[in-house]
Amino acid sequence: MKINKNYQKLEDSYLFSTIAKKVSEYSKANPDKNIIRLGIGDVTLPLSKTVVKAMQDAVAEMGQKETFRGYGPEQGYDFLREAVQKYYQSRNTKVEIEEIFISDGAKSDVGNILDLFDKDNTVLVPDPVYPVYVDTNTMAGRKIIYAEANESNGFLPMPDKSQKVDIIYICSPNNPTGAVYNKEQLKEWVDYALENEAVILYDAAYECFITDKNLPRSIYEIEGAKKCAIEFCSLSKTAGFTGTRCGYTIVPDDLVVDGIHLRKMWLRRQTTKFNGVPYIVQRGAQAVFSEEAQEEIKQAIDYYRENAKVIADTMDAKGIWYTGGKHSPYIWLKCPNGMDSWEFFDKLLNEIQVVGTPGAGFGKNGKNFFRLTSFGDKAKTKEAMERFSKLF
Amino acid sequence: MKINKNYQKLEDSYLFSTIAKKVSEYSKANPDKNIIRLGIGDVTLPLSKTVVKAMQDAVAEMGQKETFRGYGPEQGYDFLREAVQKYYQSRNTKVEIEEIFISDGAKSDVGNILDLFDKDNTVLVPDPVYPVYVDTNTMAGRKIIYAEANESNGFLPMPDKSQKVDIIYICSPNNPTGAVYNKEQLKEWVDYALENEAVILYDAAYECFITDKNLPRSIYEIEGAKKCAIEFCSLSKTAGFTGTRCGYTIVPDDLVVDGIHLRKMWLRRQTTKFNGVPYIVQRGAQAVFSEEAQEEIKQAIDYYRENAKVIADTMDAKGIWYTGGKHSPYIWLKCPNGMDSWEFFDKLLNEIQVVGTPGAGFGKNGKNFFRLTSFGDKAKTKEAMERFSKLF
Repeated sequence: MKINKNYQKLEDSYLFSTIAKKVSEYSKANPDKNIIRLGIGDVTLPLSKTVVKAMQDAVAEMGQKETFRGYGPEQGYDFLREAVQKYYQSRNTKVEIEEIFISDGAKSDVGNILDLFDKDNTVLVPDPVYPVYVDTNTMAGRKIIYAEANESNGFLPMPDKSQKVDIIYICSPNNPTGAVYNKEQLKEWVDYALENEAVILYDAAYECFITDKNLPRSIYEIEGAKKCAIEFCSLSKTAGFTGTRCGYTIVPDDLVVDGIHLRKMWLRRQTTKFNGVPYIVQRGAQAVFSEEAQEEIKQAIDYYRENAKVIADTMDAKGIWYTGGKHSPYIWLKCPNGMDSWEFFDKLLNEIQVVGTPGAGFGKNGKNFFRLTSFGDKAKTKEAMERFSKLF
Repeated sequence: MKINKNYQKLEDSYLFSTIAKKVSEYSKANPDKNIIRLGIGDVTLPLSKTVVKAMQDAVAEMGQKETFRGYGPEQGYDFLREAVQKYYQSRNTKVEIEEIFISDGAKSDVGNILDLFDKDNTVLVPDPVYPVYVDTNTMAGRKIIYAEANESNGFLPMPDKSQKVDIIYICSPNNPTGAVYNKEQLKEWVDYALENEAVILYDAAYECFITDKNLPRSIYEIEGAKKCAIEFCSLSKTAGFTGTRCGYTIVPDDLVVDGIHLRKMWLRRQTTKFNGVPYIVQRGAQAVFSEEAQEEIKQAIDYYRENAKVIADTMDAKGIWYTGGKHSPYIWLKCPNGMDSWEFFDKLLNEIQVVGTPGAGFGKNGKNFFRLTSFGDKAKTKEAMERFSKLF
């Protein structure tokens, strides 16, 4: 039996385990110090009241023979797909029910969508990048090239028309940089994909943080996108579902390659290799889109937005260059004095007991950059920024 | 962009949609007739009281900041892995915590485990077979050969030593046939796998139906299995989790291929392409293994066992040859009078309004066989068998 040798090409993912180790060692050596963590990409506010009620009701249903539900449709219950459709509708974007696939989160679908593509495709990712886009393709043995994201392009790389690529990853608002593409920029990417007969894998996990009505929250706000883009959405950051697991993936009817509808391929993949998201979770997700929950959820998102503003304002006050912070829970700052990101990490940990994520963990273009997140506690975020201000 | 052309080799899966269509048409034409469905492979009894309580508590925790949980470890929380370890322990089978991976069900893991293997491996499945084993490998472009299961071997094929294979699927108790391997037979398979340096993918989804203490409920009861087998377990039939989604996959430390530990590969695959099972569901699953729930669950399994006995007794009374029914929720019967399985399906639907699953849907060796399931309502199952008795 032959194993998949591509796994040996994977780099060991040391980033978060190295961070955890350093923090743990520091903490043991300095038990009196109060460490504030601004590196986590995880939410901290609980599920909204309305969502909790919906799931309690659903759990109760599952305990009674008359209302018990067994296997559901793999692509998700219509009650949830309709809620998703309405959510798009509210932003004047038309999506058909059959184009909507309920997922257990963007991470699973972003990885599994690759089943539909031949090994022999060139993948384009930005640098810096969310490591999953790279690793999942390395596992499949695909060739990966990088679009340079840097200070001069505001970490918003544009197409290189001299390059032919087949699979294009766009995450906007971006993880780790928080940078957001506008409509004109996305139109360039869509046109480039159409010209190259490439597919765009559009990660919209952070779309709910956008506050500017002119900034696109879905790739389908761009003309032509239905012919070339698959969109991955998640309730993780939107509704605090990181531990509850629900999202939705849009595979348009118009996305046709060599006469084959990718939507039908994805349906086949999911009906063969997946058994759907738990009924209880789907009821919780349906509740997310209700008016009441949308109000509760807005409060949570605003809470994170305020943290982001506190961090961004501190950077502004210190004259530190950064992206993000405005339409994103991430702030991607340029390390002062040309510091290396791991040096900067050590400095912050040792001198002010604040933990962030070194940009080098996301690619070579992150070498002198640093990610801070706004998902933490409000008071602690303020304190961290007070400490930061004193240091610089 | 090149799509995965292997998808075009997939046969359209007409089995259940054809059945649904025939039943729907009959029902419309005969609205007064009472149709009894014995074809479904889905449970009908609700979640146990203890499990419901555990999930209600977990939902409540998720609604409070102090007890809210975000991302969990992708391989599952230790509280659940420990419960699984104890469950194996209670049957004198030793499994280490790190060998246990909590899944959202056997179907996902049985499909996704194939990521670890090269395309260039020969797959061995039985005929008849659960179609997922075939389709997932067709999608990957692998060569598939069939082990003949038939009346003469009691639908328990044994290794063909003249064949070299790399990936071996064993489902015991079997879907669709209900046949169960004994320890000696599994030892032959394990020895064959070790000789061929092949891996066994052991589907134990129905192990809870086994009542004979001498019959193995885990492949790891067989010496040498830790070196060559991955075991997939599910709470779907055990605890009624078909719509709640939880199972566990065992990848042993000793399963090493070309010096690579498959367990580490699987951990890497899951940490890269999966974000874990919902916390709420994991608490429900943990509750499944509690003493109270085990009592409640036993009642549910006994309910299905009684249905299986009613069906099996009817076959005995009619002198109809079958496998299953004893340590399985499935009865795989030989169609009377050499009938073709679709003919038999039509006869049962039209003459006595009983729905089952034609064996042809599972492979050529099912052509003259038929699957009945014990997951339905007790009274309806009895009535169905009364009607059956009158017909033959």
